[in-house]
Amino acid sequence: MHNDEQQIRELVSTCMEATKAGDIDKVLSLMADDVVFLIPGQPVMRKDGFAAAARAQAGTYAPTFDGTSEIQEITVLGDWAFMWSKLTVVALPPGGGPSITRAGHTLSVLRKLNGKWVLARDANLLAPVASS
Amino acid sequence: MHNDEQQIRELVSTCMEATKAGDIDKVLSLMADDVVFLIPGQPVMRKDGFAAAARAQAGTYAPTFDGTSEIQEITVLGDWAFMWSKLTVVALPPGGGPSITRAGHTLSVLRKLNGKWVLARDANLLAPVASS
Repeated sequence: MHNDEQQIRELVSTCMEATKAGDIDKVLSLMADDVVFLIPGQPVMRKDGFAAAARAQAGTYAPTFDGTSEIQEITVLGDWAFMWSKLTVVALPPGGGPSITRAGHTLSVLRKLNGKWVLARDANLLAPVASS
Repeated sequence: MHNDEQQIRELVSTCMEATKAGDIDKVLSLMADDVVFLIPGQPVMRKDGFAAAARAQAGTYAPTFDGTSEIQEITVLGDWAFMWSKLTVVALPPGGGPSITRAGHTLSVLRKLNGKWVLARDANLLAPVASS
């Protein structure tokens, strides 16, 4: 159990680092093929939709991201787990405009597939906060 | 497993009916004591906060609620389960004003305690839609 929790914490760290680095393939490798993303006011997004949105945003004029994740709970249930976190994401536009900060919680279901933990279901409750 | 899934579907139905009926005690009985509610742009709400908010809203001038829940997935993991749903909630103000409709998804973690399924963690991603 302890080892699983540690691996899930590493998954979160790796995902944050890959997002900051703009490494879309790495981010996609951290998700189950049947991953489901739930976002307020938007239709359900699956892995292909996530990839398309990430690739559309990538490139010279892409914002850079920074963020912090404070994990509040990880409960491991065999080869499944759930987790909720307090997350802050700061998007910095390439032209040097004001940053956009979104903060809030995530509730995620994780799955151990072939010995590796991946994201399986994700509810993203982040909302905009005052920009800096 | 099948029986557990059926009991979880009945939990959802009972919760919707108790909410419509304004039966706060019944709604509270369907939650674990350590339930966590995650809502966009709001701090974490626990059982006492839910009860206080529900009781503050109750009374003669309370809106009435109607809604539909379309369960998209229930995965049972022993004495735990997770579920995500498409939910629409319509609030009807007592004075006959326009209704307020909120729609979106929920991702919930459920737990079987003393043989009874209850809500344990809940991410509510509902957003306002055009009022009717």
